[in-house]
Amino acid sequence: MDKAHFGLIGLGVMGENLVLNAERNGFSSVVYNRTYAKTEEFLSGMGAGKNIVGSTSLEDFVSKLQHPRRILMMVKAGPAVDAVIKDISPYLEAGDLLIDGGNSEYHDTERRVAELESKSFGFIGMGVSGGAKGALEGPSMMPGGTKASYDAIESLVCKMAAQVEDGPCVTYIGPGGSGHFVKTVHNGIEYGIEQILAEAYDLLKRVGGLSGTQMADIFGHWNSTEELASYLVEITEICLRTKDPADGSDLVEKIVDQAGQKGTGLWTVVSALQMGAPVPTIYAALNGRVMSSIKPQRQNAEAILHGPAVQSFELCGNDGTGPLMDAVVLACMASYAQGMELLRIASAEHDYNLNMPSIAQIWKGGCIIRARLLKRIQDAFNANPQLVNLLIDPWFAEQVNRRLPGLAKVVAGAAEAGIPVPCLSSTLDYINSYRTARLPQNLVQAMRDCFGSHTYQRVDQEGTFHTEWLD
Amino acid sequence: MDKAHFGLIGLGVMGENLVLNAERNGFSSVVYNRTYAKTEEFLSGMGAGKNIVGSTSLEDFVSKLQHPRRILMMVKAGPAVDAVIKDISPYLEAGDLLIDGGNSEYHDTERRVAELESKSFGFIGMGVSGGAKGALEGPSMMPGGTKASYDAIESLVCKMAAQVEDGPCVTYIGPGGSGHFVKTVHNGIEYGIEQILAEAYDLLKRVGGLSGTQMADIFGHWNSTEELASYLVEITEICLRTKDPADGSDLVEKIVDQAGQKGTGLWTVVSALQMGAPVPTIYAALNGRVMSSIKPQRQNAEAILHGPAVQSFELCGNDGTGPLMDAVVLACMASYAQGMELLRIASAEHDYNLNMPSIAQIWKGGCIIRARLLKRIQDAFNANPQLVNLLIDPWFAEQVNRRLPGLAKVVAGAAEAGIPVPCLSSTLDYINSYRTARLPQNLVQAMRDCFGSHTYQRVDQEGTFHTEWLD
Repeated sequence: MDKAHFGLIGLGVMGENLVLNAERNGFSSVVYNRTYAKTEEFLSGMGAGKNIVGSTSLEDFVSKLQHPRRILMMVKAGPAVDAVIKDISPYLEAGDLLIDGGNSEYHDTERRVAELESKSFGFIGMGVSGGAKGALEGPSMMPGGTKASYDAIESLVCKMAAQVEDGPCVTYIGPGGSGHFVKTVHNGIEYGIEQILAEAYDLLKRVGGLSGTQMADIFGHWNSTEELASYLVEITEICLRTKDPADGSDLVEKIVDQAGQKGTGLWTVVSALQMGAPVPTIYAALNGRVMSSIKPQRQNAEAILHGPAVQSFELCGNDGTGPLMDAVVLACMASYAQGMELLRIASAEHDYNLNMPSIAQIWKGGCIIRARLLKRIQDAFNANPQLVNLLIDPWFAEQVNRRLPGLAKVVAGAAEAGIPVPCLSSTLDYINSYRTARLPQNLVQAMRDCFGSHTYQRVDQEGTFHTEWLD
Repeated sequence: MDKAHFGLIGLGVMGENLVLNAERNGFSSVVYNRTYAKTEEFLSGMGAGKNIVGSTSLEDFVSKLQHPRRILMMVKAGPAVDAVIKDISPYLEAGDLLIDGGNSEYHDTERRVAELESKSFGFIGMGVSGGAKGALEGPSMMPGGTKASYDAIESLVCKMAAQVEDGPCVTYIGPGGSGHFVKTVHNGIEYGIEQILAEAYDLLKRVGGLSGTQMADIFGHWNSTEELASYLVEITEICLRTKDPADGSDLVEKIVDQAGQKGTGLWTVVSALQMGAPVPTIYAALNGRVMSSIKPQRQNAEAILHGPAVQSFELCGNDGTGPLMDAVVLACMASYAQGMELLRIASAEHDYNLNMPSIAQIWKGGCIIRARLLKRIQDAFNANPQLVNLLIDPWFAEQVNRRLPGLAKVVAGAAEAGIPVPCLSSTLDYINSYRTARLPQNLVQAMRDCFGSHTYQRVDQEGTFHTEWLD
């Protein structure tokens, strides 16, 4: 038997679909799973009749692969990745290449790249986005590691990835853990957009009094606009249109309002705080999930803490345009702007040398945050690779200037109506802070100098100053 | 010469004042500083004529202390603490006790307690708050470690601490790094209140058009109320009243509007995210500092991104009452509520067994966040030690219900006026989320099940469900 082009470890949904994708693109494959029964099940099911063989041990798995071996690990992020590396290493030879396609923390990937490269193996930390369907049909992939390692997998990943008008949705991201870092930020942006759409749904339902179908129509209109056409808006329309087969009512209303947060969303905010990058819209999304998770407390508090009766205010017309669309557009733009700024800061801090237009390009297809807007983001960074914030690019600035009054109306209306809109209001504060040359932190500096002699700078003189405020 | 009761390492401002405090309270002291010149300077300056001696080496320092030795380290958090521990350990004997009084990260303290206790030394990680003045006159102190170690320093710290009507502002916090964790959260709350007061100042200046003296009068009124009487409001009044000696104008307006964020504020938010605790008001304060620090970007953006002309809206009367006071009161209460909830969650996660009323008690005096409100917080946790959120305590709930319309008015007015109020709007969203039994995260769960087969729970049936949304 000929040796296989490609090996996959870990037959979860993502792993299964990725190996089917590789095989469809002409890469004969060998698979390994810790429990062999799962391998048999796959080979007699979805993997049947394909150019895919199984293996009973890691030694057997490795022996069935061509040199240099290209092995994709789709196992749970954390200790399981180290365990597989340890177990498989004795069978590998110089030049063989491991790819971690899970959502690993990027510091872990930095460490693994260094360790394995020192043993003459290659190691790629690769973010993969697109869900189960994307994995099968073509995901967006964010591989990081040495350029030599990337070159060894380029033909494979370029064929597996989603294709858009200017190429496949994969590129060499950069050294070390950069691929997983970019995926982390992708997920942070995803958290933001999901929460923004949830807040819009809440307002349409509670203030606008719209039915699921009526709301789906609004999201459908939005999905036809350049600013909002995107996978998440598209599936929101679908979700809102879906009926419960049991009684024909809106299925979304039957779902418990609790969402978890762990891993990549958390890491995005923690990294941003550590690097001094502002990501308030993304934090608000994360915290929205935290608030959702303490439902018993909320149920108890509803009887104790009272707000105003919900008052109606202008949201949007039947064609979807209006203040709420302005608010959603700007909040989504802010999520991307914050994510891209974090990437820019991290790139400088870690010497990742990230190519910002390329990152926008590979997010245009395959991944969860794919959106027509990414073409504008790509253009903005092509026009100015050193752009410090997306919102000051001329096209985006025009959007901000046109839509800020609408966002302000929605935040003000929600405030008076007692409805929480954390991502929308965080976005408003973010934009208003960003466009304000003089903020009030001079008072914070005065306080800190007063109680802790922390000193301060002056607007009119060079140097460091201290005042005996209490005398 | 008699051996000294107490030893201090590190003659920074805090260290100097703490040893003067100990000496004044009857504890003869020996001091050590890495550069001896600093020791000589101190002993011939502020330390002259006191029962304080110097030392030229750590060996000399240790030899001048009574058994068991009680040694307070006031050195920079991080590697310097480990370096001092390593250098001094050869001279210590079983039962000797090291106290780290810096702002150490609490995981570091966990590790140090374990290491030193295993060598039969005691180790206390002690948060100290109050600034330079507090250190001298009586700070609030948060010592954590073994109870036996605490017992060995109790007489010392009880005399050194600030005194309030029900005792000294120090208590045994709990095991391991609990003392430093409580100090971390204290600082997170402090960040919150500082930013809240800065936002109020910004509104009074830009919307209200008030002078420094007029604003100082408002803060003075607030400082006479049960809800807002506090050290930070008191010094805000002083800062706003202070004139630049050069020209008699308001000194605060001469200070650069850039504040840094690192260390404890950051750790509060990171810990909260990791433990699933909502701290949005504290995050907004931290992010306010991040936004302040990118001043060149803001100066550039002001010419590109446009907002509305500032419109006037109701803030407060000459007596300080009105919507802005409502907003400030609720945002400060939310900062304490979020901090206390984080303590409650951390206590369960780390088995700290924190005594919530005692923590409120020791914050009533000495520290930066001392406030009359802490008596109400102490009462609330005395009435219900398992209170899950301060805001549902009857006294606090009445405040929320009375003041929420005012907070909403200010957030809405600031939105329409184009002025950022991140702590105030985060507080409104926090309260509105907390009192809403049904939030819109059901849509997030629908999306996640749609693209990633993440499954969902239903409101009307037990179990885990999945829908093929795209069919």
